[in-house]
Amino acid sequence: MHNDLVAALDIGGTKIAGALVDGSGRILVRVQRPTPAREDGETVMRAVETVLGELRGSPLWLRVSAVGIGSAGPVDASAGTVSPVNVPGWRGYPLVDRVRAATGGLPVELVGDGVAMTAAEHWQGAARGYDNALCMVVSTGVGGGLVLGGRLHPGPTGNAGHIGHISVDLDGDLCPCGARGCVERIASGPNIARRALEDGWRPGGDGDTTAAAVAAAAAAGDPVAAASFERAAQALAAGIAATATLVEIRIAVIGGGVAGAGEVLFAPLRRALHDYARLSFVRDLAVAPALTGTDAGLLGAAAAVSPGPRGAAAATAAG
Amino acid sequence: MHNDLVAALDIGGTKIAGALVDGSGRILVRVQRPTPAREDGETVMRAVETVLGELRGSPLWLRVSAVGIGSAGPVDASAGTVSPVNVPGWRGYPLVDRVRAATGGLPVELVGDGVAMTAAEHWQGAARGYDNALCMVVSTGVGGGLVLGGRLHPGPTGNAGHIGHISVDLDGDLCPCGARGCVERIASGPNIARRALEDGWRPGGDGDTTAAAVAAAAAAGDPVAAASFERAAQALAAGIAATATLVEIRIAVIGGGVAGAGEVLFAPLRRALHDYARLSFVRDLAVAPALTGTDAGLLGAAAAVSPGPRGAAAATAAG
Repeated sequence: MHNDLVAALDIGGTKIAGALVDGSGRILVRVQRPTPAREDGETVMRAVETVLGELRGSPLWLRVSAVGIGSAGPVDASAGTVSPVNVPGWRGYPLVDRVRAATGGLPVELVGDGVAMTAAEHWQGAARGYDNALCMVVSTGVGGGLVLGGRLHPGPTGNAGHIGHISVDLDGDLCPCGARGCVERIASGPNIARRALEDGWRPGGDGDTTAAAVAAAAAAGDPVAAASFERAAQALAAGIAATATLVEIRIAVIGGGVAGAGEVLFAPLRRALHDYARLSFVRDLAVAPALTGTDAGLLGAAAAVSPGPRGAAAATAAG
Repeated sequence: MHNDLVAALDIGGTKIAGALVDGSGRILVRVQRPTPAREDGETVMRAVETVLGELRGSPLWLRVSAVGIGSAGPVDASAGTVSPVNVPGWRGYPLVDRVRAATGGLPVELVGDGVAMTAAEHWQGAARGYDNALCMVVSTGVGGGLVLGGRLHPGPTGNAGHIGHISVDLDGDLCPCGARGCVERIASGPNIARRALEDGWRPGGDGDTTAAAVAAAAAAGDPVAAASFERAAQALAAGIAATATLVEIRIAVIGGGVAGAGEVLFAPLRRALHDYARLSFVRDLAVAPALTGTDAGLLGAAAAVSPGPRGAAAATAAG
């Protein structure tokens, strides 16, 4: 009986998931609760403690050596606190201390959800074998994380890779973050749908006005729907090219619901990348869909705390 | 007699400088030749060999353990080659092999000039003591480099930190690199001067239409001249904020001729950073002028090859 497992927590505005994960990335126990996101902070914490309590009820808990947390951001890994935008009861909330207390003093590691997804893709997904990678989630928001020099780069506060809030249009529309022309303001699912509607696209009989419906219309040949995805692709390309130009990445991995549009997104994205990634050292940048799916948060939280998988990823890295 | 010195080469489109540098950053011998930038590649290399020959003529050469090169880019540190935009005779030129041959087989390290300037500022300048920093040169072009986690981040090919060619205006003016709305296309000295002239600014009796003349006019109250610097500051701020949001830096250090405009640049830059650096983990970003001046290239080339100064910088780092 070795301490060969880690506990993983994936905390978002909708659900709190927990798992026990082994060194090869297998999820052995899985628990989930809805996030009481509109309640006070202590009520949210009790939901986390319920998840942890169920994990501790497993006989496998004795093999757990550490806890990894991936949380909706912003987080502050150096202070051990979280302030998720969609959980107003948590502002500078001392999540690391509380999880440590709820697990009998185990070591706890905290990263943002974009960093967690990146850890998962580097360990088990499309960024496996790459020393330098950007991984992104394009969904209701746009998030991301970086692998640099073979290792996860969470940054001092665990927020690095926040590509959704870099400005690619400095005179552009105001973003809820306060800046203008952020990648998320142009490329997120709700913004793809909003732009298509503003430009004259109309939903089908089911009244579905989500980005998925716009994607289906684009795939069926609707030019306004396609143009909205092309604009999103252009913003994503400018952001990805900026990242490659700043830190030298070899691959951009894209997951999240909007990536489910497939070639409706990826075809114009590859074309736009050709326009924005011009310098010799960024021209060969690859783009690939994410592979770890809904388990990304749990796998990534586990990877962020396991020296094993990260070391192994670094040792086998090629890019 | 220890091998306690390194030889440094700073190769640009105008001059080739060489130096012998000790472990505390003192330049003990200094040599310089004009770059025969319009000649064929072998003629340019002979100028480098002349500089190296003069350095080898010093009795201190016996103490040299390695050679650091900072070169105008693009460079390819992994291949040991350089292709400086302003030296057309060098395209994929095997500079590292040639310098190794000219120095009796010493170890040779190559980085881009933006990375070299960053190494200098981290070792001896305004980024000293910071674990995470962006250093920039704003001049005829806009270049830069990164310090991440206490160490220089040159990237696999030695080009990381190329902030001048990230797009902050995705529908903006075409840049010579082929992309649109690059930071350099808006914020370089020639673009500051061009925009001021286009918008109606007229030079004084000396006919000086450089960015320095625009800066002097702005300092004297000319609103068109000031507006051109404000636009440059806005683009720099968007690029700096993007960098901070992507990799978590704590300070942006700015050198080069345009930084000589002082508060004409720095005052609107600080205001614009407040507009674009919005997330909690980038809000406290500091901005400071560079300190290493014209020696930055030589100091940085030396720092890039000396484990001593980089290690020392990491050990004393606080940011």
